[in-house]
Amino acid sequence: MMQNYIEPSFHDWDLLIKRPTDSYNDLESIVSRVFKSVKKEGDHAIINYTKQFDNILIDSLEVSLEEFKSAENKVSNSLKTAIQRAKLNIETFHNAQKTEKVYVETENGVQCWQEKKAIEKVGLYIPGGSAPLFSTVLMLAIPAQIAGCSEIILCTPPDSEGNISPEVLYTAQLCGIRTVFKTGGIQAIAGLTLGTKSIPKVYKIFGPGNQYVTAAKQWATRYHVAIDMPAGPSELLVMGDKNADPDFIASDLLSQAEHGPDSQVVFVTTHQVMLKKVSSAINRQLVDLPRKDIVIKALKNSKMIYFSNDGNAIDFINLYGPEHYMICMENEDLYVSNVKNAGSVFIGNYTPESAGDYASGTNHTLPTNGYAKQYSGLNLDSFMKAITFQKISKQGLMSLGETIELMSEAEGLQAHKNAVSIRLKKINNDI
Amino acid sequence: MMQNYIEPSFHDWDLLIKRPTDSYNDLESIVSRVFKSVKKEGDHAIINYTKQFDNILIDSLEVSLEEFKSAENKVSNSLKTAIQRAKLNIETFHNAQKTEKVYVETENGVQCWQEKKAIEKVGLYIPGGSAPLFSTVLMLAIPAQIAGCSEIILCTPPDSEGNISPEVLYTAQLCGIRTVFKTGGIQAIAGLTLGTKSIPKVYKIFGPGNQYVTAAKQWATRYHVAIDMPAGPSELLVMGDKNADPDFIASDLLSQAEHGPDSQVVFVTTHQVMLKKVSSAINRQLVDLPRKDIVIKALKNSKMIYFSNDGNAIDFINLYGPEHYMICMENEDLYVSNVKNAGSVFIGNYTPESAGDYASGTNHTLPTNGYAKQYSGLNLDSFMKAITFQKISKQGLMSLGETIELMSEAEGLQAHKNAVSIRLKKINNDI
Repeated sequence: MMQNYIEPSFHDWDLLIKRPTDSYNDLESIVSRVFKSVKKEGDHAIINYTKQFDNILIDSLEVSLEEFKSAENKVSNSLKTAIQRAKLNIETFHNAQKTEKVYVETENGVQCWQEKKAIEKVGLYIPGGSAPLFSTVLMLAIPAQIAGCSEIILCTPPDSEGNISPEVLYTAQLCGIRTVFKTGGIQAIAGLTLGTKSIPKVYKIFGPGNQYVTAAKQWATRYHVAIDMPAGPSELLVMGDKNADPDFIASDLLSQAEHGPDSQVVFVTTHQVMLKKVSSAINRQLVDLPRKDIVIKALKNSKMIYFSNDGNAIDFINLYGPEHYMICMENEDLYVSNVKNAGSVFIGNYTPESAGDYASGTNHTLPTNGYAKQYSGLNLDSFMKAITFQKISKQGLMSLGETIELMSEAEGLQAHKNAVSIRLKKINNDI
Repeated sequence: MMQNYIEPSFHDWDLLIKRPTDSYNDLESIVSRVFKSVKKEGDHAIINYTKQFDNILIDSLEVSLEEFKSAENKVSNSLKTAIQRAKLNIETFHNAQKTEKVYVETENGVQCWQEKKAIEKVGLYIPGGSAPLFSTVLMLAIPAQIAGCSEIILCTPPDSEGNISPEVLYTAQLCGIRTVFKTGGIQAIAGLTLGTKSIPKVYKIFGPGNQYVTAAKQWATRYHVAIDMPAGPSELLVMGDKNADPDFIASDLLSQAEHGPDSQVVFVTTHQVMLKKVSSAINRQLVDLPRKDIVIKALKNSKMIYFSNDGNAIDFINLYGPEHYMICMENEDLYVSNVKNAGSVFIGNYTPESAGDYASGTNHTLPTNGYAKQYSGLNLDSFMKAITFQKISKQGLMSLGETIELMSEAEGLQAHKNAVSIRLKKINNDI
């Protein structure tokens, strides 16, 4: 089902790293229309679009205290325990990402430091659709809380009865989030960007979504809002040799493929017979999957590639820049130490990709579509910004002043020079 | 010349934090046209646009070794020494920003870690115009080198004789950059985004520029390229009380105002008489400035504000989110500890803003236009991305497996569950 490529030549690599994604430019007219309406009519527009796109007329946008309470009763105890355990691991890993103030006296009397501060107002978007993605609530809300964001707003589309899934509400509450709005799609992003009577305006929007949400987030950046990263369909690249278990690899490729018909999975090997072994395992396991139709479509976008040497395999993988990258190799150290571009890396036979999706502690919001070359996955710093400070003493300025004067003059910026000269003159007069 | 506001009411704050910037949407048609031409005709298009926009026909895009050499001879020794000293301080401060690998065993047998890796290919843009901004070369190239970016490309527009300023070339060389292209504006950004025969395609583009460059960088994000931050006119907010020196403050406001007619400077005080004192000092110092005309235009966009209490002043400043924020207050600790939104902070009477522009060690590429609320100034991490890794032992998966199974099942993702179950089954069979 997946295309096989044997030792593809370097000239074909650019084609092989292509993702099955469309451009979203053709969505701009609808996105721009929704933003305009939300700007003009606020909540009214959001309720109207929710009726139009999600087919449900909601009377109140904000989730009530009663809804939170009843959600808590609807989630099984075993699932609650699982969510709590995942939360603990995710907290542990994101807490460890805290950084100290960076302080340096670059010269005598010239103190410079860098401190990170929380982004005050953040919006978290949780997609609706076929399944309630409560795991994404954990991945967005936990680092936002650890960062210390003072206003955390969550938007997620209501189901056909106007409700939010109990798992999503339970998880939000567990993470200390009490402000949840029943709205999804373009209108939710427009609400978070522009603000309405109900929905507060935020400074940065986080979270995955379909092509409409992605286009809307891109559009939001025109209105002084930042976004976490450009989103795209999920993807997994597995590198495995004879050390790998074909059944395990097949199960991981299938787990990635079930996300959506536009997901992409790639299997790379230096052990040619694995191509056939993994293929057979896929065919065996596929039969029983409830989301089989989606999986089959995704596998059509997917590739199996054989390279006879490690160097080419490693170079190809770094050029691909996979969102999820699994390494099941005898010489795993070589592969791990040569990771240049990837979202998250899964090492060894007993590290399924779904561990990182849910519970190991790492974040599952990751750059796809080759963006791992220049974007980080979501982490604590995504919810903060670094601010620099400096304090110069008279002594420090006496020492550094001439350097600044010379440079500003050479750049033709006399007033910049004056700001130093006027101070040096005062110091000299005072002496 | 600057508008005065005495104790403005909270309702007026939204108007007071407005910047004198235009939307760049009306530039999209020209930007899109240039990108299309560069995509189609490569170097040829870039040379044509350089002729059309910069009025110079260049025969070779890349700066030659001879040009580098002759540049070195044209820069005075005293300026070289100044640039070298600034480089040392900037290196010291950005070196201190290096972070260790974050490693946690979240549960027994579940190892998670985060490592930062350089963005491999980066493009640095240095504006041309009235003055050679060699200081920006330092601010972009130094962190790129410390991060370990393997391909660093610099673009800057040629002057009317087809040359690049010797100061820019000298500084680039000093920072270890040998790949410099003589092209600016939209066509330079298009070249870095799309790649041509001469100009390599990069993963992330850094650097300031005029409205065309800003619009082009925004446009570049449609082509899988990241940018450092949305740019805008420079700005400074000074907070000063009777402890401050009106002459110093005037010199800083003027140094910011000389950047361009759309720069904005704001003076906030809790000591009302300072409004008049600073105004007079501005008028006195203004007379002799070579860029007086620019300054006068910028001052027309600028404001002086009196608040009777510190709380309101601090809240207003955090709502404004200044790019440069200078604190000259008796109770400076109160102000420093309450900084929530700012690009870079300058503390005390002997810390002119121009120190940070050139030589103290902090970076001068900072978020303007209110973006300090959600963006960091340029720092070492801007040239890197964080990658997460995880490695789970059999023991670890036996312990964590059920949690993953429960959660993936509840999200309706059976194949995600299978990837765990198939491994647990194997472990149990092996025991």
